[in-house]
Amino acid sequence: MLYHKNIPILYGLPALILVDQQVGGGKPPSIQCPDCLNSMKRTQPLLATARALDLPIIHLQEVHRRELIDFGRELDGQEGIHDVEGTAEAELFSLLQPLEGEFHMVKRRYSGFFATDLDLLLCTIGVQTVILTGQLTNVCVHYTAIDAHQYNYVVRVAEDCVAGSSPEAHQASLAAIEYHQYGAIRSSHELIKELSTRLPTPWRIPSHSTLLSSRWFMQPQNL
Amino acid sequence: MLYHKNIPILYGLPALILVDQQVGGGKPPSIQCPDCLNSMKRTQPLLATARALDLPIIHLQEVHRRELIDFGRELDGQEGIHDVEGTAEAELFSLLQPLEGEFHMVKRRYSGFFATDLDLLLCTIGVQTVILTGQLTNVCVHYTAIDAHQYNYVVRVAEDCVAGSSPEAHQASLAAIEYHQYGAIRSSHELIKELSTRLPTPWRIPSHSTLLSSRWFMQPQNL
Amino acid sequence: MLYHKNIPILYGLPALILVDQQVGGGKPPSIQCPDCLNSMKRTQPLLATARALDLPIIHLQEVHRRELIDFGRELDGQEGIHDVEGTAEAELFSLLQPLEGEFHMVKRRYSGFFATDLDLLLCTIGVQTVILTGQLTNVCVHYTAIDAHQYNYVVRVAEDCVAGSSPEAHQASLAAIEYHQYGAIRSSHELIKELSTRLPTPWRIPSHSTLLSSRWFMQPQNL
Amino acid sequence: MLYHKNIPILYGLPALILVDQQVGGGKPPSIQCPDCLNSMKRTQPLLATARALDLPIIHLQEVHRRELIDFGRELDGQEGIHDVEGTAEAELFSLLQPLEGEFHMVKRRYSGFFATDLDLLLCTIGVQTVILTGQLTNVCVHYTAIDAHQYNYVVRVAEDCVAGSSPEAHQASLAAIEYHQYGAIRSSHELIKELSTRLPTPWRIPSHSTLLSSRWFMQPQNL
Repeated sequence: MLYHKNIPILYGLPALILVDQQVGGGKPPSIQCPDCLNSMKRTQPLLATARALDLPIIHLQEVHRRELIDFGRELDGQEGIHDVEGTAEAELFSLLQPLEGEFHMVKRRYSGFFATDLDLLLCTIGVQTVILTGQLTNVCVHYTAIDAHQYNYVVRVAEDCVAGSSPEAHQASLAAIEYHQYGAIRSSHELIKELSTRLPTPWRIPSHSTLLSSRWFMQPQNL
Repeated sequence: MLYHKNIPILYGLPALILVDQQVGGGKPPSIQCPDCLNSMKRTQPLLATARALDLPIIHLQEVHRRELIDFGRELDGQEGIHDVEGTAEAELFSLLQPLEGEFHMVKRRYSGFFATDLDLLLCTIGVQTVILTGQLTNVCVHYTAIDAHQYNYVVRVAEDCVAGSSPEAHQASLAAIEYHQYGAIRSSHELIKELSTRLPTPWRIPSHSTLLSSRWFMQPQNL
Repeated sequence: MLYHKNIPILYGLPALILVDQQVGGGKPPSIQCPDCLNSMKRTQPLLATARALDLPIIHLQEVHRRELIDFGRELDGQEGIHDVEGTAEAELFSLLQPLEGEFHMVKRRYSGFFATDLDLLLCTIGVQTVILTGQLTNVCVHYTAIDAHQYNYVVRVAEDCVAGSSPEAHQASLAAIEYHQYGAIRSSHELIKELSTRLPTPWRIPSHSTLLSSRWFMQPQNL
Repeated sequence: MLYHKNIPILYGLPALILVDQQVGGGKPPSIQCPDCLNSMKRTQPLLATARALDLPIIHLQEVHRRELIDFGRELDGQEGIHDVEGTAEAELFSLLQPLEGEFHMVKRRYSGFFATDLDLLLCTIGVQTVILTGQLTNVCVHYTAIDAHQYNYVVRVAEDCVAGSSPEAHQASLAAIEYHQYGAIRSSHELIKELSTRLPTPWRIPSHSTLLSSRWFMQPQNL
C-alpha cells in the first residue's frame, strides 16, 4: 500500500493511547488475533519514549460487567464472550501496565470515545495528535481512530504496535484510516525518532497550587 | 465471502435508513465512488416496499456549512471539499426524495449517530433493526453501521444499495460489518421478500389526540 | 409547593440510582450540604426494598483523577477541590455500599449521563423509570434528572433521600424537576409502598447460558 | 443575590448564543414566560455588538417534528405541545434573525448540546467563552449553561436578555448557574462594554483558499 510519508508526523501536543493491550487480547476461542502478543511487545519502546518525554499516556481497557448485561450486540458475530470483569484475560498486559500519572479508562464498546470521558480528557489536556497502539487493528483501533478523526484529532497509528483478527482485516483497516488522513500510518520507529527529535515541551500535570491559583475568584488581581 | 444467511433478517420494528443518497455522491473530483449512481437507483424498490409497509424511513444528508468551518479533519485524506450547503451536489438524489411523514436529518460527519439526534429518534420510535443503504460503503455506511451496533441495534446492510470508493474498500467494509453481526449483509431482494412476508404491523405516527391523552396529568383515571 | 401526587409512580421497569452517596458529600470546606449525612441514612430503607425486589441498582460516584486534570471549570464557583481519587471523602458511604450484582459507575461531571455509559446500561436493561437519591439535590441529582428526562426516562426523586447545598437550592431544584414531569417528587415512603404493592416482576440478570443461547448463529433453528 | 462581578468577563474567543429566541416563546397556553418578548427585544444591542465585532453567533431553535414523535417526556409537566415544525410559533423572532455567516442549529431538547453538533462547532471554531441569551432562563438557558460548563466552557449569561417561566424560576436558575461559575451572570450593558473595550481580534471565517492550503498533502513543504 502506498502511504503518504512526507506529511508531518505530529501536530501540537501528542498523546499515546494504548487500546486494549490486555492479556487475553486475541486468544482463541474468544477472539482471534495471531499477532497480538508480538504487537504488544513491540509497543514497549514507544511507551518508553512517551514516558521519557512526559507525554500524556492513556490506557484503554475493554471490560464487560460480570453480569454480562452490557455486551449489547457484541456476541452476534465472530467474537465470543470476552474481557469479563475479574477474569485474567481482561487484565492489562504485564509489560504495559500504567504508571502513576498515566490515565486509565474502562470502556464497554470498541471505540474509546463511546460512552467514556476520553474526548473530555483529551480536550482538557489540550491534545491535538493521538498516537494509537493496541488491539484489534480492525475493531477497537479502527473505530477509536475514526472517532478521533470525527472529533478533529490528528490520528497516527503505530503500524507495528497494532494487530488484527487476520492479516487482511489488519491491512484493510489501516487503508481505511489512511483514506481519511494521509500520513496516518507510521512505524513505531518513525514515531520514536520524530518524538525524540522534536523534543516536545514536556507536558506537566498541573499541581494543586497551580490549580488553586487558577480559580478566578481567588486571584487578587480580579478582586 | 461467506456470509451467514440463515440468521433471521429482522428483529422487532425495522427502520430504513438512507445514508447520504446525494446527487454529488461519488462524483470526482470531490469523492470517488464509481457505483454510486447505480446503487442509488437500485435503492428505489426497497424504499417503495418500506413505504408500502409504512415503516419509519430516515434520510441522512451530509452537509457542510458554507463557511467550511465544520470540515474538521475531513480534508486531510482522499476526499476533497464536498457536500457544501447550497450546492447542487449536496442535494438528495431526485428519485429518493423524502415524502411527508419521513424523517430527514443533517449530519456533519460520517456516522449518522455522530452529533445528531438519530439514536434519540430511533429509541423513541422503538426501532430494533436498522436497514442501511447509501454511500459510501466504506465511510458513512460503515461507521453508521458500527455506531448502530454499538448502540445495540440489529444492523442489516442492503448490499446492492450501497457503493464504495473502490470495489476493494466496499468489500472490506461489508466484511468488517459482518464480522460484528453475522447475517448483516443482505441483498435488497432478500430484504424486500422478508419485509413483505412478515407483514410487519404498520408503524403509525401518533396523532395529536393520542399524544395529548398520554399526558399523565390529563388522564382522569389518574386524578 | 403543590406537587402532582395522583400521577402513577412507576412505569415499566424501575431502577434505583444512588447519586454520589459519598463520605465527603457535603462536608465543608469542599462542598456545603448540611443535610447530606441524614439523607444518606434515610436512603437505607429504599435501598433495602429495591434489593428485596431484585431491581437494578446503580451507584454513581464522582471521582476526579489525582492529577486534578479533569476538574474542568468545576472550581470556578462555590465548590472547592473535592472527590479526588484515593481520598477518604471520595469513598462511597459505608451504609450504602454496592453489593455483588449491583452496578457501579464513576463519573467526572455532575450529570450521571455525561461522558459515562449510564444511558447505554439503562437502555440495555430495559429500564423505563429512574428513581433518584443522593447528593446534591441542586447539582448532580438535578442534572442527572434532567438528562434522564431528555433521554426519555420517567424520573422520580425520593425527596427525603436527596440533600442540597441549602434548603432554598434544594427546593428550587425539586420545583425545576417537577416542572418537567408532574409527579416526579415523591417521598421514599410512597416509593417503598408502591414498589411493594406492585410486586414488580423481578429483574433477573441473564445467566451465561441464557446469553450464549441468544447468539443467533448458535441457535439451531437459525441454521 | 450577591453576584461576583470582579471576575474577568471574557476568556479567549467568545461566542454569542441565542437560545430559542422564537416567536411563540412563552406564549400561553403552550408555555408561560411573561418577560419573553421584552427579553428578546433587549437582546438586540448585544447582538449588534457581536456583529460589529465579527464574533461567532449561533442561533439555536427548538423544533419538534410535525409527527410529534420526538417530544419524548417533554409533555409530562407544565409545558404543552410547542414549537412544532412549520408553525408560526416555532419561527425565530423577526428582530433576531440570523444573517449570512451566522450559525443556525435545530435542537429537540432543552440543552443546546443534547443530540446536536454544538460542542463540535464551538470546539472547531476555538471558542472559550459562551455568552447566553434567550428563553427560558429556567429551562433551555439553564441546561445549555450547565452543559457548556460540563464541556469546559466559560459561561456568561446576559441577565436581562433571558426570561423565565416565573420571576422565581428565573432567579433560581441564575443562582444555580452562578453557583458553578462565579461571575457568570452579567448585564448586557456590562457585556457590551467589555466586548467593545477589549476589541477582540475579529474572528474570521476561513476562506476556501485558506482551507485548501491547510490540507497537508497539498503543502509543498510537506512533499
